[in-house]
Amino acid sequence: MILTPRIPALFLCVAGLAAWISTARGDDGYRLWLRYDQMAAGPLKTAYAAVLPRIVLATPTGSDSATLAAARDELATGLGGLLGFMPRITIEKRTDIPSAAGEEGYGLKRTEPGTLVISAWQDVGVLHGAFALLRAIQTRQPVEQFDTVSAPKIQRRILDHWDELDGFVERGYAGRSLWEWSVLPDYKNPRYRDYARACASLGLNGAELTNVNAPILVMTPGYLVKVAALADVFRPYGIRVYLTAKFSAPKELGGLPTADPLDPAVIAWWKAKVDEIYRYVPDFGGLLVKASSEGQPGPQDYGRTHADGANVMADALARHGGIVMWRAFVYQPSSTLDRVRQAAAEFKGLDGKFRDNVVVQIKNGPLDFMPREPFHPLFGSMPKTNLAIELQITQEYLGASIELAYLAPLFKEALESDTYRAGPGTTVAHIVDGSVDHHKLTVIAGVANTGTDRDWTGHPLAQSNWYAFGRLAWDHTLTSEQIADEWTKMTYSDEPKVLGTITKMLLASRETVVDYSMPLGLHHIMAEGSHYGPGPWSIVQGPGFRADWSPPYYHQADAAGLGASRSADGSNSIADYAPELAALWGNVDTCPENLLLWFHHVSWDYKMKSGRPMWDELCLRYQQGVDEIRGIQKQWDSLEHDIDPERFAHVQALLRLQVANACNWRDACLLYFQTFSKRPLPAGVEPPAHDLAYYEAVKIRYFPGTPGDPKVTR
Amino acid sequence: MILTPRIPALFLCVAGLAAWISTARGDDGYRLWLRYDQMAAGPLKTAYAAVLPRIVLATPTGSDSATLAAARDELATGLGGLLGFMPRITIEKRTDIPSAAGEEGYGLKRTEPGTLVISAWQDVGVLHGAFALLRAIQTRQPVEQFDTVSAPKIQRRILDHWDELDGFVERGYAGRSLWEWSVLPDYKNPRYRDYARACASLGLNGAELTNVNAPILVMTPGYLVKVAALADVFRPYGIRVYLTAKFSAPKELGGLPTADPLDPAVIAWWKAKVDEIYRYVPDFGGLLVKASSEGQPGPQDYGRTHADGANVMADALARHGGIVMWRAFVYQPSSTLDRVRQAAAEFKGLDGKFRDNVVVQIKNGPLDFMPREPFHPLFGSMPKTNLAIELQITQEYLGASIELAYLAPLFKEALESDTYRAGPGTTVAHIVDGSVDHHKLTVIAGVANTGTDRDWTGHPLAQSNWYAFGRLAWDHTLTSEQIADEWTKMTYSDEPKVLGTITKMLLASRETVVDYSMPLGLHHIMAEGSHYGPGPWSIVQGPGFRADWSPPYYHQADAAGLGASRSADGSNSIADYAPELAALWGNVDTCPENLLLWFHHVSWDYKMKSGRPMWDELCLRYQQGVDEIRGIQKQWDSLEHDIDPERFAHVQALLRLQVANACNWRDACLLYFQTFSKRPLPAGVEPPAHDLAYYEAVKIRYFPGTPGDPKVTR
Repeated sequence: MILTPRIPALFLCVAGLAAWISTARGDDGYRLWLRYDQMAAGPLKTAYAAVLPRIVLATPTGSDSATLAAARDELATGLGGLLGFMPRITIEKRTDIPSAAGEEGYGLKRTEPGTLVISAWQDVGVLHGAFALLRAIQTRQPVEQFDTVSAPKIQRRILDHWDELDGFVERGYAGRSLWEWSVLPDYKNPRYRDYARACASLGLNGAELTNVNAPILVMTPGYLVKVAALADVFRPYGIRVYLTAKFSAPKELGGLPTADPLDPAVIAWWKAKVDEIYRYVPDFGGLLVKASSEGQPGPQDYGRTHADGANVMADALARHGGIVMWRAFVYQPSSTLDRVRQAAAEFKGLDGKFRDNVVVQIKNGPLDFMPREPFHPLFGSMPKTNLAIELQITQEYLGASIELAYLAPLFKEALESDTYRAGPGTTVAHIVDGSVDHHKLTVIAGVANTGTDRDWTGHPLAQSNWYAFGRLAWDHTLTSEQIADEWTKMTYSDEPKVLGTITKMLLASRETVVDYSMPLGLHHIMAEGSHYGPGPWSIVQGPGFRADWSPPYYHQADAAGLGASRSADGSNSIADYAPELAALWGNVDTCPENLLLWFHHVSWDYKMKSGRPMWDELCLRYQQGVDEIRGIQKQWDSLEHDIDPERFAHVQALLRLQVANACNWRDACLLYFQTFSKRPLPAGVEPPAHDLAYYEAVKIRYFPGTPGDPKVTR
Repeated sequence: MILTPRIPALFLCVAGLAAWISTARGDDGYRLWLRYDQMAAGPLKTAYAAVLPRIVLATPTGSDSATLAAARDELATGLGGLLGFMPRITIEKRTDIPSAAGEEGYGLKRTEPGTLVISAWQDVGVLHGAFALLRAIQTRQPVEQFDTVSAPKIQRRILDHWDELDGFVERGYAGRSLWEWSVLPDYKNPRYRDYARACASLGLNGAELTNVNAPILVMTPGYLVKVAALADVFRPYGIRVYLTAKFSAPKELGGLPTADPLDPAVIAWWKAKVDEIYRYVPDFGGLLVKASSEGQPGPQDYGRTHADGANVMADALARHGGIVMWRAFVYQPSSTLDRVRQAAAEFKGLDGKFRDNVVVQIKNGPLDFMPREPFHPLFGSMPKTNLAIELQITQEYLGASIELAYLAPLFKEALESDTYRAGPGTTVAHIVDGSVDHHKLTVIAGVANTGTDRDWTGHPLAQSNWYAFGRLAWDHTLTSEQIADEWTKMTYSDEPKVLGTITKMLLASRETVVDYSMPLGLHHIMAEGSHYGPGPWSIVQGPGFRADWSPPYYHQADAAGLGASRSADGSNSIADYAPELAALWGNVDTCPENLLLWFHHVSWDYKMKSGRPMWDELCLRYQQGVDEIRGIQKQWDSLEHDIDPERFAHVQALLRLQVANACNWRDACLLYFQTFSKRPLPAGVEPPAHDLAYYEAVKIRYFPGTPGDPKVTR
């Protein structure tokens, strides 16, 4: 079968000019990493052209489909743009597909001169292969690299959108929700398809549409028809839709007197509701649930367990192939247990009690997406349970979309953490991908940083975090460096100066944020509400007070020293980990310094590896963060004449704000901690610009995405 | 002085191709009416090219400026795009400028073959002339029409943005606020300049940035530096910035014990605050104030008058050339007076008491931007006071940006209303433009419908309302037809089928909305909260109850009939108008039928001009509205192959929603009113799809822009 490309030939003639116009007019970032600007002429372009006159899409059926049409469209657009070149694309029935391609992967192979075969067991694998081919060209790989087989290591690779139905995005810093509920299903914004293209280009295969705190309305027919419209747009791109479920839905939506998961009427209600969802969305992915946490209802309200709660939904979903993602982010204001231990305490005993189509979805760390945390102790502690990892792509605690923080190093740190549960090398990644305990259902979720801002992510460089999450979801063995290199080449340029500068900035950025905000294992000392900027003194007064939402609960600063005491003589959270780690982390002298104040209350005078007292080290680390972000700022400034002016100016402006906020962090935290340490700032630390009262009085933070009016004090 | 155009020549070579690509790829509406796609070759294009080899920008100084640079940029972009042609642009010192051009107007004149002179007394007039020239070409005027002199009839032509500082836009249906407070002043989104270009292309000269209900924070230094950054972007385009002021600011911001406008400390505070604002924004326009209304503080709190309140700010602004726009939108829950009479009662006696640099800003009608209202009785009632008209461009009561309602006919209806105050022909427009009472300060304000949606206004055709407001602000004698013709040619095409179809749709649309929602003078019977869809039964229960926010207060339906009684035997609101109008409107038999139920409680059996009883007429009018919007839908469908697919699909989807909502309006209102009329639906009216209980139970409206969670009943 020979297919006519959908894009007329004239497009190809002018693609180069169009690219020029686009560049000359400035670049708004909308195209993400799928830019497809024309390559300069040269041997590599010639080599590509020689390989690609004919592309064969090979599947076991050889039948066309909407997914194969999407692959053809992308190849036509991409190759037309990159090479000014329109290959002949055919679909063929083949059975010599590499078995390693698995359900969603692909093989790429140059079979004869001028022919490249993209083969896959399923059509979506062909689509993934098409994107892989385009990425290889965008990143200027030699043609030998075209021959490859790839398959994802984790089954379900999902973006979680914390989007409310009114368009507000919780912890979203890039505008409003992408989903235009008010005009769906009638109007499908063309942007939905571009969202699906971007996700599919990374191999993501799920989109969870609504906030875990969102109302249950999304499960009513009026909204399900809208959900179905989105699912229809996403389906050709291999993206399945997931929704959040509120545990109390049988009462609130169903009018039942109870939501007890063992009540027969409740069981029947969930079954009927799930059946109804599948009538709208036949390939519906499943439900994400936040229960018994931060005010949400849950099975404990009826004396039942998390497993009871998850299983009632799981049973309803099972016959449709759907899953439950049951979040382990639970903690109670009434608990006397250290907050970072509560999830482990609640869940460990439930190992083996969850249905096969349930995953317990666990944040990377035991607290809440801090700039640095140790891994969550539930990883490795529930071998008979499917465990998903939830990473946060949106920068709730890392400066929102105002600040640069390339998160691949954070994601990798979590995934590569060694739990020791089945001996050394039992990494979190190997638990999540099911290889340690031979689980069939594997899930990785990332809380999206997308919104209606023209560049999708608010900060032009924050697109790299969406990219990094997607690439790691497919293959967690990729390095942060590889991913930064790919993304930069695709999104900016492979020109050595630009590539070298941007990748260097990206790779340094997360540690820089740690240094100027929460170094040495400090955590949860941000401003209340916005979570942006420093607030180590911050205690919510009045009836809303919760110790476990107050920074002093975490930093424990006093005259003696600083840091949470979580060793055996403290909350003993080390006991939640394997003995090897408990021993390492429980000893102040062997605990890695980047987690020191997470696990230990440390004397101001404690001698650090540098030989300096802890107080001096702390001060210098804050200063180092400021120095580093100033360095990053200078690196960016050096690119003024090397990249498009629009993105240049945007990032330049945001880096100015980041430098200012880094200084705020340093000054505010050191002045505050100094009230306990009573020690002078060491040489090399710049004097604060204001006194502590000034920083404590700052109530106005110019901050995107916070609902409601800013408060005024004067 | 000969100037090099800023746009490189290559741009011109590829402009045609670029336009083609843009069309082929779909059109997202971002360019508004400033599209500049290349004209087809032909005699007219040849004639344009013959006139325009040289363009002279003539001013009394002959000096270059940022405003003249903006004019040159626009001419280069516009003529390059339209004609593929780059004129030689020179600036010359001249004194033979037409006096009729006034402060902001311009003369266009072909002086010798191949030369066109744009002359103006001020640089901003040249900019306006440049846009006028481009418009003439975009609308395919013969070159003879180039020779013209034009000046605005109203001095201050302002868009009011009801934008909160957190990005929420009150009654905004096109995304979030355009102003990115969190990253200003460091990052100036390139969109700000395009906003200024669009405004300047219409001759608008002011942007009031914040909601009248917004917090006072915008007057603090932290925000003023951000306001200044916006003002800097707008300044070359002749757009001055205005802000809202909260009456209680001296207390809340200043820490004073009182906001009494006669208190010396308060007077001093306003002076100091205004001086401070001018240090940030030297050409600051002035303050918009909503006082003593809907919960806002005001001078009445201190036993003072609106004039006292306005004058304290006016005195502070006067020496900087700033003005106060004091809104007359006041009404009190405690008043026993008909809400539509309260503003007149409060303000009439204050005539002559306001400073010269105060305008009393009056909505077009006495209620609140209904689909149809009589004009506001304050127009003509305060000859010694500057009176501004406030029109609503955003469609608060006309279907949000979901529905098509071209508002030029509504604006014109208000502006051309005859007040009879200085004899017949004393129109609202002539009061507002100062010609009746020889006022020096004249103002027209429109509540903007803009937001971060890519197409700016949510509905592609709603751009026409921004356009229509701007054009009428410059010249209120333009007709709705002229404006629709211009806008359609510029935004879509001058191809006769497209032009004819779209202008017909536009011109019919407002009356269509009236017919299916609030015909025959009905008003304020919309759903509570969202103001979208029908809610004639709607009464807010509980402590929030206000009769004057409840539809039954306005429609007064009972067994006898329907409509508010405002003649002499009712609230006597007719007494607020000139005797000629009181006589006309006060008599049920001479009252225009389109205002019948505004002024009269009319028997269900009252015989209408059609010969039908009122009930039948009402029913058939609702049906007519549904028929009309279905007709508009068909007209749009006929354009499927004549315009770009992206905008076609968007409008098509929205029209589907509009037809559905029109049916809802008809069915819900007729079923509800039928419970009073006890009469059958006449022949020709489609039976309702559901019973009344169904419509009354609808609590969920899929509606853009409403904050907070939708409520669930089931």
